[in-house]
Amino acid sequence: MKIALAQLNYHIGNFDSNTEKIINTIHAARGKGADLVVFAELCISGYPARDFLEFKEFIGLCEQSAQTIATACTGIACIIGIPKHNTNRSKGGKDLHNSAYFIADGKVQQVVNKALLPNYDVFDEYRYFEPETEFTCVEYKGHRIALTICEDLWNDIENPLYVTRPMDKLMEQKPDVMINIAASPFAYNHDEERIAILSDNAKRYNLPLFYVNHVGAQTEIIFDGGSLVFDNQGKVIDELPYFKEVITYYDLSDDSQVTPQQPVTLMPERQSDIEQIHQGLILGIRDYFYKSGFKQAILGLSGGIDSAVVCALAAEALGAENVMAVLLPSKYSTGHSITDAEDLVENLGCMSETVEIKSITDAFETALHPQFEGLPFNIAEENLQARSRAVVLMAMCNKFGYILLNTSNKSEAAVGYGTLYGDMCGGISVLGDVYKTQVYQLANYINRDKEIIPQNSIVKPPSAELRPDQKDSDSLPDYNTLDTILVEYIEHRLSSGEIIQQGYDEATVRRVIKLVNTAEHKRYQTPPILRVSPKAFGMGRRMPIVGKYLS
Amino acid sequence: MKIALAQLNYHIGNFDSNTEKIINTIHAARGKGADLVVFAELCISGYPARDFLEFKEFIGLCEQSAQTIATACTGIACIIGIPKHNTNRSKGGKDLHNSAYFIADGKVQQVVNKALLPNYDVFDEYRYFEPETEFTCVEYKGHRIALTICEDLWNDIENPLYVTRPMDKLMEQKPDVMINIAASPFAYNHDEERIAILSDNAKRYNLPLFYVNHVGAQTEIIFDGGSLVFDNQGKVIDELPYFKEVITYYDLSDDSQVTPQQPVTLMPERQSDIEQIHQGLILGIRDYFYKSGFKQAILGLSGGIDSAVVCALAAEALGAENVMAVLLPSKYSTGHSITDAEDLVENLGCMSETVEIKSITDAFETALHPQFEGLPFNIAEENLQARSRAVVLMAMCNKFGYILLNTSNKSEAAVGYGTLYGDMCGGISVLGDVYKTQVYQLANYINRDKEIIPQNSIVKPPSAELRPDQKDSDSLPDYNTLDTILVEYIEHRLSSGEIIQQGYDEATVRRVIKLVNTAEHKRYQTPPILRVSPKAFGMGRRMPIVGKYLS
Repeated sequence: MKIALAQLNYHIGNFDSNTEKIINTIHAARGKGADLVVFAELCISGYPARDFLEFKEFIGLCEQSAQTIATACTGIACIIGIPKHNTNRSKGGKDLHNSAYFIADGKVQQVVNKALLPNYDVFDEYRYFEPETEFTCVEYKGHRIALTICEDLWNDIENPLYVTRPMDKLMEQKPDVMINIAASPFAYNHDEERIAILSDNAKRYNLPLFYVNHVGAQTEIIFDGGSLVFDNQGKVIDELPYFKEVITYYDLSDDSQVTPQQPVTLMPERQSDIEQIHQGLILGIRDYFYKSGFKQAILGLSGGIDSAVVCALAAEALGAENVMAVLLPSKYSTGHSITDAEDLVENLGCMSETVEIKSITDAFETALHPQFEGLPFNIAEENLQARSRAVVLMAMCNKFGYILLNTSNKSEAAVGYGTLYGDMCGGISVLGDVYKTQVYQLANYINRDKEIIPQNSIVKPPSAELRPDQKDSDSLPDYNTLDTILVEYIEHRLSSGEIIQQGYDEATVRRVIKLVNTAEHKRYQTPPILRVSPKAFGMGRRMPIVGKYLS
Repeated sequence: MKIALAQLNYHIGNFDSNTEKIINTIHAARGKGADLVVFAELCISGYPARDFLEFKEFIGLCEQSAQTIATACTGIACIIGIPKHNTNRSKGGKDLHNSAYFIADGKVQQVVNKALLPNYDVFDEYRYFEPETEFTCVEYKGHRIALTICEDLWNDIENPLYVTRPMDKLMEQKPDVMINIAASPFAYNHDEERIAILSDNAKRYNLPLFYVNHVGAQTEIIFDGGSLVFDNQGKVIDELPYFKEVITYYDLSDDSQVTPQQPVTLMPERQSDIEQIHQGLILGIRDYFYKSGFKQAILGLSGGIDSAVVCALAAEALGAENVMAVLLPSKYSTGHSITDAEDLVENLGCMSETVEIKSITDAFETALHPQFEGLPFNIAEENLQARSRAVVLMAMCNKFGYILLNTSNKSEAAVGYGTLYGDMCGGISVLGDVYKTQVYQLANYINRDKEIIPQNSIVKPPSAELRPDQKDSDSLPDYNTLDTILVEYIEHRLSSGEIIQQGYDEATVRRVIKLVNTAEHKRYQTPPILRVSPKAFGMGRRMPIVGKYLS
């Protein structure tokens, strides 16, 4: 049996485009002599379709797409992922299953439903789907396929999250191969995890395993591809490319030996976290614009490292000619900030404009003079600058059809070091899941072949430049310390006590954690953040706003 | 046995305050001779504690609070709700149970875990909790109590959401009374639903039922109280007040007859939706400020009905002396808008300031002249006005410590008729779950005894006043039509085709639904919205941003 794996980029709710892509791939695979082509989990609808799944019409359109695909699927079989009505609804349960259709001879031959439904981090599958409790292998071309969906293989032996393990039941039917269709989002450490847990399954059940993932971004969620093929010893036979679409072919012999039909170059070593984050962010920006029907980005360029990195990433994702960098100097901007920003624009070849904001902030201060008279300069005047810049950038969006890129990093977003409706604005946040220390690594990576980001933007002390001689270090610990505390609190959910026990200064730890918790109301209103870590702000981290607990 | 029901207002993560309130209530109930006092679901932590539940320290503090309460609980028993470690974790499952502790003689005597975990709308209980599958009654003072938690009784006979029904299993142990502790959020139609489904349980199992709910708001989620007592025929014996804290007492005889120990006045008729919404919003505003540690609100007063209604509600919630209304006229503001706003300020007696924004928008237009020269006036200039107002209001927040109240209504929020970082700003949205047609009803209700909101604000055609002679009806259908289409789409999840079949104009329906879907990126960044309907924007409605499906 010849098996094709289709690692493709879908678009949520774009039935025409998804269906066409699937049918074209079926035709291509048949042309190459494949007997079976495997698509990813919920490829018909795109993932995550969220509450679109609560619309009956949406589910009807999914079924209609599946029938169109089935009609095209003759002389070859395929496996597609689809949200499907729970036909056993009379005894209770949610309306839908997260299903796989096995299609052959122009018809849906068999339906397999997902049993283990992830409902943590960014996942909400219990919101929509009823878990399956019965399991049947798919028989095809003399093979017995144990077909499962993503999380169904994702139950750690050491620390099980679910009480059942679908493969244990499927093994009673003596399958000779496993196929798993997935929607497994990118995080910089997730590729190793995926390989380890899937390899463990191949070994445990002594079966070869074909695993197909999505690639492409859906708003904040990035899928990195990296689909996998294992032999029955759990050895990786093929690892598909990351961050791009690809179709690959394998021969599965009668005794379940797998032979790739194209040259395979297994990676000699894993990509670094920063290389992965770099590729993920570029795909994230590109798909956000492409799938929203926009082409051009705008951002404020301060001369600092964050906006410089965002500008460079946007230029790579969209083409420098589609990036408008706006310099918005105030009376507190230093001369080197402006020249650093200008150097970057020249290095990238992107568009640029300069809009001075002094006359604008003066107008605000004059208008507010009756109310503010006699009161000292404080955060109100600082924020006026950040907000005036945002209003200018948004006016240019409204006039010319740009999308504003947010340039806040994760460290700032964590401690609320940013102005709501000011530098926290944007259609999408590029660095909101990248700690400041990682932003430096990204800048150096972007400069790996030649200086794109001016060295001065990298080496100078970070500053918001909202008052004379301001530096981030005036009010925050150094970023190495800050980021370590933040990782322990946000990623590892340690308490302040536990972090202090690691040797960090008590006052610093308590202050940082208080800042994180009291900035919750700000983060609630920020743009979607491209997710590159195992714990990003947004749907994957849901915190109360008026809660009192400060750890 | 004498049973006390404690319908209280908790604060998420405020262990000191919640524990003290519970202990004081135990002492008070013991003083009144009660044998058992019943508190609400997850009262120890507050509800919903969301991802605080992922912090081990948080769960430890819950347990510590429970032990403190247990120590105080002698000479009386109590039932409290608490998130508790899943001690059976070795066989798999989530870390926590949503539990009830039965406490007597200074110790936790029995633990009951929730079986049916709501994971729809605003609920995410599968994110944290493992469902229970085994059930045991609580024995106390010669009674056998079937103790369940909220959703455990919430499984419709006609259309079951869950495959099991905990009470069916508990009935095998022949209980003589049911107690249900709940965290059932307010929606204007939810009181009737609650009474019907609980009455149905009392009848079906032929047992009296004591039901205790939360009261008070946690950011956007409002709990309305309305705890209930039923006899074994499903007849309401007592309905506790809505929107306030109360403790009530009942005698439960050996043959399970229930006698209230205080005068009971059953409501002759249900409160209207608008009365309920009015009370809910006032409680929502008040608790948002109180629990955040703020006292004073600010809002922009346009002379229109939305900001007038928000101002009146804020004055009632916080006291007029704590409300700052700012008039922000532009060159497009009509004279009557200013006088209408001034009349309202006088009627309420709140603070007010006037800040002209013409010089500010002029400064923006001058600064952007090089970029905008020769291009026609459009949405860019319209939004400059809305955003300039927001910057002024936020500057006053930063200077004086106000929280900005958002004044957008649900109809506007739905179709994206509002400016991001402009009139869509605020700490909390008061009317974001109230359709425009309901805003009119609210205004009339506020004026029920005397004219508070100037009649002119109610009767004049709605306008954003962002260009000369602008009216909402220039670009939107009339609000009766708009709101009906929105309810069908948002609340009932009908497709455009189904709505058109009801007789609505096809072009209008398609345009409205397209507006709703393309405004998703705006709503993502708006403040939390006080939830008063069964389907509010926010955590209860999770939509993709880059999705293509338009219904």
